[in-house]
Amino acid sequence: MSPKITGELLRLLRQAMRNCKYFSEPIQAYIVPSGDAHQSEYIAPCDCRREFICGFNGSAGTAIITEQHAAMWTDGRYFLQASQQMDNNWTLMKMGLKETPSQEDWLISVLPENSKVGVDPWIIAADQWKNMSKALTSAGHSLVAVQDNLIDAVWTDRPERPSTQLRTLGLDYTGISWQDKITVLRSKMTERKITWFVATALDEIAWLFNLRGADINYNPVFFAYTIVGMNSIRLFVDLQRLSDPGVRDHLQLDSPSKPELSIQTFPYESVYPELQAVCAALGPKDKVWICDKASCALTRVIPKVHRTPIPYTPLCLAKAVKNATEIQGMKMAHIKDAVALCELFAWLEKEIPKGNITEISAADKAEEFRSQQKHFVGLSFPTISSVGPNGAIIHYRPLPETNRTLTVNEVYLIDSGAQYIDGTTDVTRTVHFGTPSVFEKECFTYVLKGHIAVSAAVFPNGTKGHLLDSFARAALWEAGLDYLHGTGHGVGCFLNVHEGPCGISYKTFADEPLEAGMIVSDEPGYYEDGSFGIRLENVVLVVPSKSKYNYRNRGSLTFEPLTLVPIQVKMMNTELLTKKEKDWVNEYHRKCREVVGGELERQGRMEALDWLIRETQPII
Amino acid sequence: MSPKITGELLRLLRQAMRNCKYFSEPIQAYIVPSGDAHQSEYIAPCDCRREFICGFNGSAGTAIITEQHAAMWTDGRYFLQASQQMDNNWTLMKMGLKETPSQEDWLISVLPENSKVGVDPWIIAADQWKNMSKALTSAGHSLVAVQDNLIDAVWTDRPERPSTQLRTLGLDYTGISWQDKITVLRSKMTERKITWFVATALDEIAWLFNLRGADINYNPVFFAYTIVGMNSIRLFVDLQRLSDPGVRDHLQLDSPSKPELSIQTFPYESVYPELQAVCAALGPKDKVWICDKASCALTRVIPKVHRTPIPYTPLCLAKAVKNATEIQGMKMAHIKDAVALCELFAWLEKEIPKGNITEISAADKAEEFRSQQKHFVGLSFPTISSVGPNGAIIHYRPLPETNRTLTVNEVYLIDSGAQYIDGTTDVTRTVHFGTPSVFEKECFTYVLKGHIAVSAAVFPNGTKGHLLDSFARAALWEAGLDYLHGTGHGVGCFLNVHEGPCGISYKTFADEPLEAGMIVSDEPGYYEDGSFGIRLENVVLVVPSKSKYNYRNRGSLTFEPLTLVPIQVKMMNTELLTKKEKDWVNEYHRKCREVVGGELERQGRMEALDWLIRETQPII
Repeated sequence: MSPKITGELLRLLRQAMRNCKYFSEPIQAYIVPSGDAHQSEYIAPCDCRREFICGFNGSAGTAIITEQHAAMWTDGRYFLQASQQMDNNWTLMKMGLKETPSQEDWLISVLPENSKVGVDPWIIAADQWKNMSKALTSAGHSLVAVQDNLIDAVWTDRPERPSTQLRTLGLDYTGISWQDKITVLRSKMTERKITWFVATALDEIAWLFNLRGADINYNPVFFAYTIVGMNSIRLFVDLQRLSDPGVRDHLQLDSPSKPELSIQTFPYESVYPELQAVCAALGPKDKVWICDKASCALTRVIPKVHRTPIPYTPLCLAKAVKNATEIQGMKMAHIKDAVALCELFAWLEKEIPKGNITEISAADKAEEFRSQQKHFVGLSFPTISSVGPNGAIIHYRPLPETNRTLTVNEVYLIDSGAQYIDGTTDVTRTVHFGTPSVFEKECFTYVLKGHIAVSAAVFPNGTKGHLLDSFARAALWEAGLDYLHGTGHGVGCFLNVHEGPCGISYKTFADEPLEAGMIVSDEPGYYEDGSFGIRLENVVLVVPSKSKYNYRNRGSLTFEPLTLVPIQVKMMNTELLTKKEKDWVNEYHRKCREVVGGELERQGRMEALDWLIRETQPII
Repeated sequence: MSPKITGELLRLLRQAMRNCKYFSEPIQAYIVPSGDAHQSEYIAPCDCRREFICGFNGSAGTAIITEQHAAMWTDGRYFLQASQQMDNNWTLMKMGLKETPSQEDWLISVLPENSKVGVDPWIIAADQWKNMSKALTSAGHSLVAVQDNLIDAVWTDRPERPSTQLRTLGLDYTGISWQDKITVLRSKMTERKITWFVATALDEIAWLFNLRGADINYNPVFFAYTIVGMNSIRLFVDLQRLSDPGVRDHLQLDSPSKPELSIQTFPYESVYPELQAVCAALGPKDKVWICDKASCALTRVIPKVHRTPIPYTPLCLAKAVKNATEIQGMKMAHIKDAVALCELFAWLEKEIPKGNITEISAADKAEEFRSQQKHFVGLSFPTISSVGPNGAIIHYRPLPETNRTLTVNEVYLIDSGAQYIDGTTDVTRTVHFGTPSVFEKECFTYVLKGHIAVSAAVFPNGTKGHLLDSFARAALWEAGLDYLHGTGHGVGCFLNVHEGPCGISYKTFADEPLEAGMIVSDEPGYYEDGSFGIRLENVVLVVPSKSKYNYRNRGSLTFEPLTLVPIQVKMMNTELLTKKEKDWVNEYHRKCREVVGGELERQGRMEALDWLIRETQPII
């Protein structure tokens, strides 16, 4: 990995910073966040501006360029990678270390008096703008919105914004028409006396219209905005995409069933003037909903007196609670996914002793097996395929220069998932193809106990996910072990593999209470630096639970695993498991055998079936 | 209980609201919060203004009086009591019910345009002022500070502010001199570049100066403020209290050891002008620390540019971590407290069958036994002594009209504690003097399992208490049961029985991480409305724990029970307990027998000793 040479690029960028064509006066610093205009977790190549300017291509990082300096902030996952990818024009700011200044403090320390700090208001969230602006103002500087992106101005070979073909999803996949989703949204707006709603998150727009795209790797979304009023629906998208007759028909563009369900379409870029027009016509009591994580640019179009920022939009909440059709689809997707993984593990077992399997080839093989399954679309995130010490790097992704060979001597961790038209998967298994050490088994068993404690937990309706996080850790804690990540995230249905507003984490972010129909991951782990990593992840469905006393009719919930892939018994120290935990493992394996075994048989994948049957023998 | 007649009082108050002697123009509404100028949880009679104006004497409630209306907001604990104590001049606003408007919304709905809403800025916290003011302003009204309290203006027989004798505590009780506490405080101020610190919480001031008072029932505090600078200590207190030679000597008022440890004393009321004087002399970079829960009046004396509000003061944090001397004192206090409770239970067992023991007489007897112990000062809160259905009322306190007789047929719950010079106690036991029902035993056992799960939990250094809350509920949850209160609160050392900044609760308030030396309660419960209540409460000390792998030297913590009172075996369904839980119970009872048995023997209280020995037989 050699660093990107950035001297000339920085010279051009600094020229642009001084060029009054872009801002009425020269700016002394320019901030380059890593997001896109929709605050997406994964971004398209055309939006990788921070990578373009500094060379660092990790998922999180902010670059700031002044006349004299260039600095890039990222977190502990990426210290090594960033230091290798950036040349010495750049200072690496290691977030989380005591001596590292915040972006604000650093700016204040290096800027001349009364400086202007520029940022593209489309790629900074409204709440981030507010904090940065406050800090700079208190030190006599100001944060200014530069409408043209200055990176784009110097990026001559910038890729086009993707505009992939749209895919329509019928009721057999979505369970509810987009028209009905609009109606439900409007009833929520009426309830809260809201007259307009601005949607900016790509997965919310895809979900609302029952459409999917492929504009961003791993995320079946498309670039769009939408503005919904009580009698108006405005969709902003590359209009060429709407020439497809299937899409036109799906959206009833040519013959709307009712006037209030008629969609007006506009070019993607028109969202700004159209929102201005909407706001210009607002009555004195009109209120507009927008997520507080939406871009500063769009948020500030809405006059403050009309603006009602919300931490989660009604679409985000509605999308999180899957309906019966979506649940059925997610179950099907997970059965197919389990078939592919059973095949993978049976194949690995046979091939590894030959010494030719690497992290990368194993990941490729997993994708190959998955791609043979019906309705396969692609992966849902880059596969984490890691052997031995690489397994201890939580966000590891095998690269040619780090690629290790799988052997019978090291623990293997694979965290992978796929997009199928009927659902999204995300599963982690940790296995040993030889004889695990006593310590590896001990750690694995604590992680398993934590996984079971969450999966089998019964809790009252209205409980927030963060209250379950410690259940996943109790066994590890007792031994003096822990893991430095949350326990679970929301999972979309043929949508983003990470979604809000629910999750299971020690971080007390404002998560919404768990509800029947929500789908989250349950993935405790343990990481022994330089040695091995363990993680056990199932995707689980929140389901009503029958408890003895039922909380005086408040009702209770528990989880049903959707992931049905055997958990390696060889890695367990069964002496550390209680009777209840063993019963859980046996019941889980019985279900894997019944459901996935049936499918393997139907598909005639007999080697994998043999493997499954052997791996699901009851433990005692 | 007959309601207070308030017609004439309200007439006088409304007259005062129109009287420009108090505010430059008439005010249309007046808010009466329930606190005092120090945001104390318990308040002195002279500060019971909300009770005076409306008759309701519960611990939480806010009254608002307009020209036409009078309304009082309180929560579910007090709906019945408030409705009985208030006459029909008042509307009871039941907080937590959907149809109940917030104070802001109600004011906006009833006020004429452009109204002034008055409040005494001394008894509203700065953050509450901010929220209320914002809501009113957005509706065209304004919140105004009325310096003279209007309730006091119409309260002709208002009690005097108490000014009890001050008690000095030597190093054998405090472990650290007030001079050293000042030095530590100043080093924290230097670290954060703070030049002044304003203390307003009474327990913090008592702790800082190693002084105690008796101004407020159950809380050994005294009315005071203090302002600490790098070379200055200003104490605001009724100066008559400082005439005692012991106090003068303790505070070195006549011969300070060093100039920077010389205390300047001022009358209690002078805090306002003195803080003004301090602020007038601030340099441009000077910063003043004040708790964000301090009164609006004092907070607003500090110009915004100098004001650094903090959720917890450094005194609050320092006070929470007990030193070796304080821990030793707390242990001694709990042993004495256990002696008293063993006596109580032995006595109740003998007396109850005679049919003469009531909730009130049992509580009185508990106080009598406690008062025989060395260094007893008083109770630490009103005893909750409750039989059968009264036990299900979480904040029950026996009154003549509710007083039930203890029998062999109902569950008895007693939650009580005392102030000793060496420490503060708070313990709850739930017992049956006859034969408990299967359901009562089942519920008791789940509560016990929760109590043990918290008490025996091992967790890494830096863990916040709220992450442990679900451990207390898991066994109840599994059966479809829950309790609607937190699991634990911080406990002072011969100070307030409730203190911050740590605790164990599902509410994710900004609690500080648990540290070795902190002392909290562990008190899960279960309440069956109309039938019985169960709570099991120990005060526990946070101690370092030896875990197998010690979190890579991050270190781990667990709890050591300070409370040593047997947990009634008769109430347990031992079949529901695991081996580990039974071991915990047996080890706990062994310790009760060893430590408290020794003390009972030393004090010659042989009947109680016999009871203790019988009640601490190992379970199998």
